Amino acid sequence: MSKTIAINAGSSSLKWQLYEMPQEEVLAQGLIERVGLPQSISTVKWGDEKDTQTLDIPNHEEAVKILLDDLIRLGIISSYDEITGVGHRVVAGGEIFKKSTLIDDKVMEEIAELSELAPLHNPANLQGIKAFKHLLPNITSVAVFDTAFHTTMPEKAFRYPMPNKYYTDYSVRKYGAHGTSHQYVSQKAAEILGKDIKDLKIITCHLGNGGSITAVDGGKSVDTSMGFTPLAGIMMGTRSGDIDPSIFPYIISKDENLETAQDVVDMLNKQSGLLGISDISSDMRDVEAGIKEGNEKAILAYEMYLDRVEKYIGQYFAVLNGADAVVFTAGVGENAADIRERVATDLSWFGLTIDPVKNVRGFEGVISTDDAKVKVLAIPTDEELVIARDVQSFQN
Amino acid sequence: MSKTIAINAGSSSLKWQLYEMPQEEVLAQGLIERVGLPQSISTVKWGDEKDTQTLDIPNHEEAVKILLDDLIRLGIISSYDEITGVGHRVVAGGEIFKKSTLIDDKVMEEIAELSELAPLHNPANLQGIKAFKHLLPNITSVAVFDTAFHTTMPEKAFRYPMPNKYYTDYSVRKYGAHGTSHQYVSQKAAEILGKDIKDLKIITCHLGNGGSITAVDGGKSVDTSMGFTPLAGIMMGTRSGDIDPSIFPYIISKDENLETAQDVVDMLNKQSGLLGISDISSDMRDVEAGIKEGNEKAILAYEMYLDRVEKYIGQYFAVLNGADAVVFTAGVGENAADIRERVATDLSWFGLTIDPVKNVRGFEGVISTDDAKVKVLAIPTDEELVIARDVQSFQN
Repeated sequence: MSKTIAINAGSSSLKWQLYEMPQEEVLAQGLIERVGLPQSISTVKWGDEKDTQTLDIPNHEEAVKILLDDLIRLGIISSYDEITGVGHRVVAGGEIFKKSTLIDDKVMEEIAELSELAPLHNPANLQGIKAFKHLLPNITSVAVFDTAFHTTMPEKAFRYPMPNKYYTDYSVRKYGAHGTSHQYVSQKAAEILGKDIKDLKIITCHLGNGGSITAVDGGKSVDTSMGFTPLAGIMMGTRSGDIDPSIFPYIISKDENLETAQDVVDMLNKQSGLLGISDISSDMRDVEAGIKEGNEKAILAYEMYLDRVEKYIGQYFAVLNGADAVVFTAGVGENAADIRERVATDLSWFGLTIDPVKNVRGFEGVISTDDAKVKVLAIPTDEELVIARDVQSFQN
Repeated sequence: MSKTIAINAGSSSLKWQLYEMPQEEVLAQGLIERVGLPQSISTVKWGDEKDTQTLDIPNHEEAVKILLDDLIRLGIISSYDEITGVGHRVVAGGEIFKKSTLIDDKVMEEIAELSELAPLHNPANLQGIKAFKHLLPNITSVAVFDTAFHTTMPEKAFRYPMPNKYYTDYSVRKYGAHGTSHQYVSQKAAEILGKDIKDLKIITCHLGNGGSITAVDGGKSVDTSMGFTPLAGIMMGTRSGDIDPSIFPYIISKDENLETAQDVVDMLNKQSGLLGISDISSDMRDVEAGIKEGNEKAILAYEMYLDRVEKYIGQYFAVLNGADAVVFTAGVGENAADIRERVATDLSWFGLTIDPVKNVRGFEGVISTDDAKVKVLAIPTDEELVIARDVQSFQN
């Protein structure tokens, strides 16, 4: 038996999924919340069962201990020896990590150095890595980078039109994010379409609370909507996406709550997007409920969201000089059939034609009509599976 | 005889063109440079002749006096009574001015108040207005706004996904620019195509030292690449266009030359774009000369420029759900046949097919093949003529 854990460690959370590999069977999954805060909560789901504990978990190492204890306590595994691999999601891989990588001391140092590019995420990811290294030092430990899939972007796409020193001296460039998801759904789309991905041009729309859109040419990312950080691109739950840079000094001079550029970025990250416009929620479901009540701000938020998504799809039709398929994934992309339908209607000139019978919540596969010039697909993303597979690739 | 002057007043310059109306005949044109600086230069061109004077011109009122004196001195007019109208380009019209407007005291006050949105331009425009009001108080005086054409944008396009108060309290929204040019070339394109503009979807590319791209639906601007200010959108001569907002605090923390968000905006306005990447020049002709010498930075700057232009064209194909025509204008757009050809080649999927015989520098009209699904046109812009026409419309 060869079990692999996929880990997504946040600053105060640890999300995990345990696989039997290479069968890719999910044995259990869980989430530990409020790590480092009083009354942490650990939830485990396996089969049809669910276990929840509330206890104080002061740090990530303690969180990993609890998780491992739970696996034994709940009878999901009988010995730690069954676990042969762990894969860690790492947000920023910079220009160093072009693919998933076996973790050694040097890799840990490099992930730490890349924290400048993801100050909230990389340190947390690293804590998860260190906890496993300490508790299960002999298993295969792999870092899976959110940016790796986008390292194939050409320089014309990843550079910003700024003085060269900002790239050469300070590493300012487009890195993108959600790479694991864009990679997974583009490959899955090729499988579903029965084509070699090398022969396909695909636009993948990862629409969740965060969101990004990627142009995938022959299986490689050639452009993506997120940028130096995950703030750029389309409108998101609480994030603005792209804005005119000149707004920075103007609103700092006007709004007494904003003193520095960092204050503006915090506002653009946390109080903007669907939340900022709807004044209701960052969650599309709440915005759609608001629309049903005739709330005008909710309608505006919804229309702006669609506008940005459609513009990026149009952009990537240009980047790819045409596309074979448009794929929707993640919370909004997988579930909001109305959004998929609106996008296809608004872009009918491009050849997207939705089949309303297939375009329902939860359907996986092609949702366009048989004669659609550009296929439209809905595919649930599975970043954890990609992580487990990447770990497995080092164990073969 | 009814003569009209079109005026474009900058902070230290005054550009003018004198028309015989309604014949739309250009009688003379000129430029006064270094207003307020020692050794100002006034140049007048009329017929095949040219006159240049160097003298000290302390302010815009004095500049207007010189211009009027020159017209008599050079025999272009015999009396000031011949001048019946003046039109002034005004950069920022905010949400107030949706079309060209007869100037009275209230309008002047409003233009002054809108200086917040264009601190470098509106005060200079206003100085030109006041000088004419003082020297020729009885002629028809009209303000022609760079933003007016874009006031038809829908709210989903002009709003930013930020908390509502930035719009309601501080007027932060997309205003766009180059409106007079986008309006002129879209109307001209309809004329050339022999169609009613109401039935056309046109993407207009004003590519000069500054640059913007507009989606024109039935003669109305429905989206444009410039934003709250002319910094946003495509890559330009010295301007970055769109970047990830998160770059602001990051580079302020890294680069000791940058202390405030305003410093960053100044750098993005003045040292970025083609200049920042090529390290040669902000002028596309110099960049292209660099490419011929094999300069890699010049090649990158050129490729990045094309990338941004093509992405915006793709975006606006999405906004318009298809387009009938793509129009190129302004310095680069009118002259750089190679750029027009590359755009058409890179976007061949969209149905742009260039006829190489027609696609030469200086050709005005349709440059696509007869069977092209989407017509491509090159049209020299003429903002001064639009200004003169708008003045004329108040004199009929």
